[in-house]
Amino acid sequence: MNNSNHFTNTLVEDLIKGKRRALAKAITLIESTREADFIHAQKILEQIMPGLKPSVRVGITGVPGVGKSTFIEALGMMLIEKGHRVAVLAVDPSSPQSGGSILGDKTRMEKLSNQKEAFIRPSPTKGTLGGVTRKTRESMLLCEAAGYDIILIETVGVGQSEIEVASMVDIFMVLMLPGAGDSLQGIKRGILELADLLVINKAEGEQHRLAMVAKRDYQNALHLLKPKYPGISVPVMLSSALSGKGVLEIWNYIEEFVDTLKKRGLFEQKRKDQQWNWFLRLTEEKVLQHFWNKREVTKELDQLKQMILKGETTPVMASWKLFKIASDID
Amino acid sequence: MNNSNHFTNTLVEDLIKGKRRALAKAITLIESTREADFIHAQKILEQIMPGLKPSVRVGITGVPGVGKSTFIEALGMMLIEKGHRVAVLAVDPSSPQSGGSILGDKTRMEKLSNQKEAFIRPSPTKGTLGGVTRKTRESMLLCEAAGYDIILIETVGVGQSEIEVASMVDIFMVLMLPGAGDSLQGIKRGILELADLLVINKAEGEQHRLAMVAKRDYQNALHLLKPKYPGISVPVMLSSALSGKGVLEIWNYIEEFVDTLKKRGLFEQKRKDQQWNWFLRLTEEKVLQHFWNKREVTKELDQLKQMILKGETTPVMASWKLFKIASDID
Repeated sequence: MNNSNHFTNTLVEDLIKGKRRALAKAITLIESTREADFIHAQKILEQIMPGLKPSVRVGITGVPGVGKSTFIEALGMMLIEKGHRVAVLAVDPSSPQSGGSILGDKTRMEKLSNQKEAFIRPSPTKGTLGGVTRKTRESMLLCEAAGYDIILIETVGVGQSEIEVASMVDIFMVLMLPGAGDSLQGIKRGILELADLLVINKAEGEQHRLAMVAKRDYQNALHLLKPKYPGISVPVMLSSALSGKGVLEIWNYIEEFVDTLKKRGLFEQKRKDQQWNWFLRLTEEKVLQHFWNKREVTKELDQLKQMILKGETTPVMASWKLFKIASDID
Repeated sequence: MNNSNHFTNTLVEDLIKGKRRALAKAITLIESTREADFIHAQKILEQIMPGLKPSVRVGITGVPGVGKSTFIEALGMMLIEKGHRVAVLAVDPSSPQSGGSILGDKTRMEKLSNQKEAFIRPSPTKGTLGGVTRKTRESMLLCEAAGYDIILIETVGVGQSEIEVASMVDIFMVLMLPGAGDSLQGIKRGILELADLLVINKAEGEQHRLAMVAKRDYQNALHLLKPKYPGISVPVMLSSALSGKGVLEIWNYIEEFVDTLKKRGLFEQKRKDQQWNWFLRLTEEKVLQHFWNKREVTKELDQLKQMILKGETTPVMASWKLFKIASDID
């Protein structure tokens, strides 16, 4: 056994014992861009995967200002009181290389981050969404190996990140601000389709009435949509994360939802589908990246683009030509 | 000049003169699965493309029974009276090889199909959605070359076909049935996101009141969504295609919508984006198809799948392995 294997084994042992330092170190390997670290990280994953205990994975999104941190802190504290161990991960492809990220700032969740039973990890630093997503998916497995039985994955409402997070969790929750009618900010296209649960946060004081109106409006809108799972409608719930109001009811719903999925055999199936789809996506991304980076392809592309935009050739003809050029040099 | 070139040139000449038989023949070449026909069709397209006059391309979808044929007939007849030439194409990947397709049945639009200024073509016969879409995109160009200045593209609400049609037209219209509250059938996920215009058809007799309620419900739901184009909201209009009521107002809105896009420079840009995205999609489809069909890939895939589903390897590791195997044999 060489040194590298020894290092891996010790790390895996400590990780499985639930040592936070080992978990943090393993995640750092996952997030590294060095190839040696990548291989090392993959070895760790292969070792831990067969023994993984199931956790509940919860995705949480919402625009900045909706109170995600406060909500996660309230939810996390409550779960720890109930005897759970809670990991909080983040997906934020806009997160800068160092500091300053709203999701990277642990002080946002001061109470939670001081808990022995909580593990908070900011978003992997700046990178492509695909890269950030890969790292978060794998960090999630590490957290499970370390005995965290509830994983909260936070994302900001930017670009495709919600779709990514929704595709790696068991339940996807969208936080909204109170407001109604004209004052309701335009909902991002597609977000209602992703949600398993809508929560109107900051439903407190003067805003409670507005939150009630918003609740009715969202219920009406959701009512028009075909449900994601037959017979399971998307509830709209109220919370005031600041006072903790509504947080228990929301958790009860999450447990009920996961139970229903399990009873119907959908939970296991969903997890398997997620793994398989993730494999397919990773592979296709790599194949396409390889193709578009071929020297002959990059050389021809600009001219073909001009011809297409000027209407001098059809997309079909141009595509055919490019594929032939790339195959010939394979 | 050889025979094949002579044939092409005559066909193109007749096509540009607006001869329906030449148009039908050219579309048949597009739809053919023979490679010689494919090359021939591409040559025709390359010849006609530089001189194409702009048309208005309208996508129309709705569940079976919503009255799409009656609506298209009413709209088409009105447009011909206004001096337009109207082509009706269809995208229906479920359409069977011969006859029986609800979109293939010309007798549905008996009045319109008897008009000199109308050209109706059923969906390309059974094939992959990608194939059907390619053929329809190219047939659209042939119709424009033959002087049809309005192209109506019909699709049934099945699978991805709406997304495809929305990506090849200037305006995408969704027909709905009257109904309200609980009686509103679940709207297909994502359809509100695609629509530029919602039409509640069969708003006649007893159903008029229901249509008004549905209109309000849909308006509320749409109101919550961020608009596709800033400042352009999606209207909900009523029609009774049977009596022709509402059809003129709908056309007026389509013209107004296209005008607005043109004034803002969005029309030309949208067309160019569509061409370029279509090229990218075609190319990537071909590259991926080539990859997944590699003998070494098909050989390994099943075992890798089992390992992933059993949790014996990570999707990242498996994907990495498969890509390496495929590259080594390139």
